[in-house]
Amino acid sequence: MMHALIQREDGFSGTQTGPDIADLTPFLTHAEIDVPTPGPGQALIKVHLAAVNPSDIHFIKGEYGQPRRRGVPAGFEGVGEVIAGDTALIGHRVSFFATASGTWAGYALTDASGLVPCRADLAVTDAAGQLVNPLTAIAMFDMIRNSGADSFIVNAAGSQLGKLLIALGRDYGIQPIAVVRRAEQAAALKALGAAHVIVTRDPDPLDQAQAIFESLKPCILLDAVGDQFTADLFFAMPSGARWINYGKLSTDAPKLTQLGQLIFQAKQIEGFWLTRWMKQADPARIPEAFSEIQKRFVTGKWTTDVAGIVPLSAAMEKLPQVLAMPDGKAFIDPRA
Amino acid sequence: MMHALIQREDGFSGTQTGPDIADLTPFLTHAEIDVPTPGPGQALIKVHLAAVNPSDIHFIKGEYGQPRRRGVPAGFEGVGEVIAGDTALIGHRVSFFATASGTWAGYALTDASGLVPCRADLAVTDAAGQLVNPLTAIAMFDMIRNSGADSFIVNAAGSQLGKLLIALGRDYGIQPIAVVRRAEQAAALKALGAAHVIVTRDPDPLDQAQAIFESLKPCILLDAVGDQFTADLFFAMPSGARWINYGKLSTDAPKLTQLGQLIFQAKQIEGFWLTRWMKQADPARIPEAFSEIQKRFVTGKWTTDVAGIVPLSAAMEKLPQVLAMPDGKAFIDPRA
Repeated sequence: MMHALIQREDGFSGTQTGPDIADLTPFLTHAEIDVPTPGPGQALIKVHLAAVNPSDIHFIKGEYGQPRRRGVPAGFEGVGEVIAGDTALIGHRVSFFATASGTWAGYALTDASGLVPCRADLAVTDAAGQLVNPLTAIAMFDMIRNSGADSFIVNAAGSQLGKLLIALGRDYGIQPIAVVRRAEQAAALKALGAAHVIVTRDPDPLDQAQAIFESLKPCILLDAVGDQFTADLFFAMPSGARWINYGKLSTDAPKLTQLGQLIFQAKQIEGFWLTRWMKQADPARIPEAFSEIQKRFVTGKWTTDVAGIVPLSAAMEKLPQVLAMPDGKAFIDPRA
Repeated sequence: MMHALIQREDGFSGTQTGPDIADLTPFLTHAEIDVPTPGPGQALIKVHLAAVNPSDIHFIKGEYGQPRRRGVPAGFEGVGEVIAGDTALIGHRVSFFATASGTWAGYALTDASGLVPCRADLAVTDAAGQLVNPLTAIAMFDMIRNSGADSFIVNAAGSQLGKLLIALGRDYGIQPIAVVRRAEQAAALKALGAAHVIVTRDPDPLDQAQAIFESLKPCILLDAVGDQFTADLFFAMPSGARWINYGKLSTDAPKLTQLGQLIFQAKQIEGFWLTRWMKQADPARIPEAFSEIQKRFVTGKWTTDVAGIVPLSAAMEKLPQVLAMPDGKAFIDPRA
């Protein structure tokens, strides 16, 4: 048997309420259930530490791109030791994305083909969150490099993913323009490598943006917010701009006030989903990316800001408080 | 000297009022001006007949992708005889897009490289409108064919361009789904080759669309309207759908109510502009396309519905009435 946070609902909710959550009880139950059994092609992992990403919250609310499964543990991402299954990695420490039974549990079940062995010197918090954010950062930054850009825009830039992207921009000489809500976030992001920080709560963020865009001419906007200000930024960008949406922190339905720019300025709006990227990417790029990811964490080019590690036994009560903190990432420890 | 409808304003207006026009006098003046003189690489054409397209109206209002030029004749498109210039086509009848001095005049000036010689059996109304709509239809239909689609959606389907696209779908076996405002338009479009016609003024157009999309699974939406219903159609389309906007008949600013579909369903929103396509297309495709265009008109696979031919001398007064007619294309005859 194992302890787990299991889903209370099936399928999609049809709502769009964003990533905030004050109470887990409508969506999850803390329960003791059977340890899952690996089938063909699967691996069973004893979870050391599980990540909590915005996509997890969207998912348990029934607002993500995959349907919920009642009675199955939640949690997409984690690190642990392979205990059993169809793999040569038994006994190894791996990072993984749980496809069959989630990581917010003592044990998780996933496709054996997706296991990512971890360097011994990789910290457990870096290892627990090595897939969703770092691989998304690498994949989206590949698009930026392939586009030949000299600069790019990233919003929700104070998020873990935002900071990973800023550090990549710094290291590859592609100037990051960071968009954040709170002025207090600006100094840390500039220290990290942001060329400019636009604060949306300032009185004139769009004027600031326009002045910056005139000199840097950014053509890629990596968007985790999806609000009207993001649309306004897009329409302030130069010809050829791409608005790449990969998250929905806002519940706005942004208006396309300058649709003609798509015609006359060759602008376009698209989405990025890591799950699709992994299916379509050059297969050699993925192990190469994980090698780069682990090296970046171990050498300090990337860091994981920890908001808090919540014991699984107390997660129903305490996780919302940690998620409400303005900075850093939340984790669940299933061994506590 | 020549008679011409010359522009009264320079540059852009900053407004977005759509393609309707009740009065030309804020934007144009009927004047007698000097016949322009061709410079290096230019050709002077005695205009036989000029087309009036929605883009002309957007342009004179200062709402198009190019700035107005005060004192210069309006009118993008027409047919006429080459009189002088840097070309071997002097004395030939050509269709052309006026880049230097517009077609709503006795004589027009354009780049000699863009002249399109006309077959002798091509009717003057087909020849006058052979570039903007037919070449756009060919170019966008190339995208549909290249995508491997079995069906596509076209709105403002009762427009000249809409009908050209429906006929292409019919002839190449790619099922057109036509979107129109008025139920009276449906029968003619079905007779022309539309597989289905969605009438937006019906009580349940989105339900109709959803039922059609379930069987045909169209992945390309060719949009000349840009209103909220178009956005709703896009979000009702299957995974991988592309919303390709090429015109703005509506003054709506459509809301992206399901932005997450760009992430999870790989949908995207882009624009099409013939001017850009002509710069980027395989250079061999353009003369090939004009050969196909003229053949299609001469053999009756395409027809030009004429709403009215207005003498240039009476155009200031009469053109708005012809443009207000629900179907067919308006022309200006500069010889009358």
